[in-house]
Amino acid sequence: MRRALELAANGPATGPNPRVGCVLLDASGQFLAEGWHRGAGTPHAEVDALARLSAGAARGATAVVTLEPCNHTGRTGPCALALIDAGVARVVYAVADPGPVSGGGADRLRSHGVDVVGGLLADEVGPFLADWLVAARLGRPFVTLKWASSLDGRAAAADGTSRWITGPEARQDVHRRRSAADAILVGTGTVLADDPALTARDADGQLLPAQPVPVVIGARGIPVGAAVRGHPHSPLIFATHDLLAVLGELHRSGIRHAFIEGGPTLASAFVAAGLVDEYLVYLAPTLLGGGRLALGDIGVAGIDEQRRLTIEHYVRLGEDLLVVARPR
Amino acid sequence: MRRALELAANGPATGPNPRVGCVLLDASGQFLAEGWHRGAGTPHAEVDALARLSAGAARGATAVVTLEPCNHTGRTGPCALALIDAGVARVVYAVADPGPVSGGGADRLRSHGVDVVGGLLADEVGPFLADWLVAARLGRPFVTLKWASSLDGRAAAADGTSRWITGPEARQDVHRRRSAADAILVGTGTVLADDPALTARDADGQLLPAQPVPVVIGARGIPVGAAVRGHPHSPLIFATHDLLAVLGELHRSGIRHAFIEGGPTLASAFVAAGLVDEYLVYLAPTLLGGGRLALGDIGVAGIDEQRRLTIEHYVRLGEDLLVVARPR
Ligand SMILES: NC(=O)c1ccc[n+]([C@@H]2O[C@H](COP(=O)([O-])OP(=O)(O)OC[C@H]3O[C@@H](n4cnc5c(N)ncnc54)[C@H](OP(=O)(O)O)[C@@H]3O)[C@@H](O)[C@H]2O)c1
Ligand SMILES: NC(=O)c1ccc[n+]([C@@H]2O[C@H](COP(=O)([O-])OP(=O)(O)OC[C@H]3O[C@@H](n4cnc5c(N)ncnc54)[C@H](OP(=O)(O)O)[C@@H]3O)[C@@H](O)[C@H]2O)c1
Repeated sequence: MRRALELAANGPATGPNPRVGCVLLDASGQFLAEGWHRGAGTPHAEVDALARLSAGAARGATAVVTLEPCNHTGRTGPCALALIDAGVARVVYAVADPGPVSGGGADRLRSHGVDVVGGLLADEVGPFLADWLVAARLGRPFVTLKWASSLDGRAAAADGTSRWITGPEARQDVHRRRSAADAILVGTGTVLADDPALTARDADGQLLPAQPVPVVIGARGIPVGAAVRGHPHSPLIFATHDLLAVLGELHRSGIRHAFIEGGPTLASAFVAAGLVDEYLVYLAPTLLGGGRLALGDIGVAGIDEQRRLTIEHYVRLGEDLLVVARPR
Repeated sequence: MRRALELAANGPATGPNPRVGCVLLDASGQFLAEGWHRGAGTPHAEVDALARLSAGAARGATAVVTLEPCNHTGRTGPCALALIDAGVARVVYAVADPGPVSGGGADRLRSHGVDVVGGLLADEVGPFLADWLVAARLGRPFVTLKWASSLDGRAAAADGTSRWITGPEARQDVHRRRSAADAILVGTGTVLADDPALTARDADGQLLPAQPVPVVIGARGIPVGAAVRGHPHSPLIFATHDLLAVLGELHRSGIRHAFIEGGPTLASAFVAAGLVDEYLVYLAPTLLGGGRLALGDIGVAGIDEQRRLTIEHYVRLGEDLLVVARPR
């Protein structure tokens, strides 16, 4: 299974499909073949491994796979069926597929007499697939909310100026994480105020190889000459405040990880709606005071309604601190 | 000098006087005697060490002392004179005394033919005496400003409820640090809203041995039955908003380290006035939103006026984070 997880890690970190690895062993436990999933439209890991064997060579074999084999006909056929057809006798997987459509592969295998064991090394594979699993379970992208603020919680000085609160290390970290997401979301307020490019760039300002799709939410129009219109991906514009509807639409178009970059109004709306799976709070060692808060009203009236977080880690980035947290 | 610093650390951490240690060596470098200062009204370190020798035994000796010998007649005579009278030939000290009254001991010693060397191990003794040195230089107490907030900079939920934002480890840390200060300062707003005892207590609620003097600042009256009136020290009440005047008065009454505990109005006034030497920001992993900010207006209009801080350290306390910082 550890080898299967290594194989899985060869796959692309973004895109609609999970990263999966598969190792095939013969009845005596000897290595037969291995495979992994290379992204949407390409064979799943199990099929990739089976394809490396001659017909009949997988009869009686054991398939060790990081994710429960899918039960779903997409651009490729269901893996459960491929394993059955190849005569695989035993399937060992780490984590179950929570998808309402893709799940159920284990049951299908069992009903065809295959011996199925789930949960092996689930504590390692689970975190590896965490974002994708959340998206599969909820039918919406995994949502990361990022903001940068002073130690006293301000996103800008009283007059709106904010360059630069955080230092270069923190800004580079944001770009790296942007690049690992499928989409980057902002409200119309940020587009109209800052005219951001919403690209992921390296320290020299060059575009990183992977770019998230830019998404703008809000009713106000986006100027024809807005920088976001020059993004390598055409921006998606949603003239609505219904965040769940936006996320559902994004999920349907294959987006599994959404990176919310603000501003304060959109960020607060996501928190208030309980739609944040991961928080990235970049704290700069400075004080600003005034009314430009990184987070506004999030629907908490009394202390009993506070939104407690679980800290995953604190990371020092130059002079700044990154707090990575999840809702409790 | 390292031994002298060890001796100094035996002294009391609070009170008007610095912690000083002294070692006396004979002309050949052999140990003669040692001493330290035990607090206001007791002999200074040099005198304490000299008192352990018979008359004349210090003739030609070297005094190694952590702080420049004082030149000032308080409840005890000037140490510089005591060393001259004892016939000490050489004085080696770590840090200079910046006090306008107490300073000048080195010059006085030199003018009596004593060989004086300053700066030995100053990089270790300086930080050890940091608070006292600031107070001596500025003629006001060293000011620590503490606040506790959510990750988004709120001191309380919208309805004012705030128990408990931070956990027991953070609260215990606050009490330990209170106990190491000479005075604890709050605005009338905090007294009227929370009726705090302003004592330093252990985890079981028992009073710690050392208690800071409670100080309340503001024009509004404090109720006769206010908890602060039951504090082991009578509260000092200043019906003014002139913070520098308050600090000057506190310094004159022997207070060298003031611990500002809020609320937001008083805290912001101290920041705006540039009167904070050390920040203790306790951040709890929670989000509150709303208008109850830990810091209000601090007089920063644009980003160019931001109050940059230098982080001394980040300390994890249970689930909370303590940020210790100094103004840049
Ligand atoms: N420090 C940081 O990390 C950071 C990050 C980004 C931006 N900023 C700053 O934030 C400022 C802009 O603030 P902002 O709050 O106006 O920007 P924003 O949150 O990007 O945009 C707010 C707009 O989003 C739309 N919207 C979409 N869904 C919504 C919902 N569910 N609830 C409410 N509104 C929704 C509304 O636009 P319509 O009225 O058009 O419908 C709303 O006016 C800029 O000055 C920028 O510099 C800071
Ligand atoms: N999270 C925390 O760390 C923390 C700590 C303490 C308190 N709190 C909360 O803070 C709330 C009280 O807030 P607050 O801001 O009213 O309390 P505050 O700062 O303790 O008191 C404000 C009052 O201080 C006086 N004052 C003295 N010097 C001043 C100056 N230079 N400028 C302005 N005012 C000065 C004024 O009183 P006069 O009008 O009487 O002159 C002013 O109204 C409470 O709900 C409490 O729970 C939170």
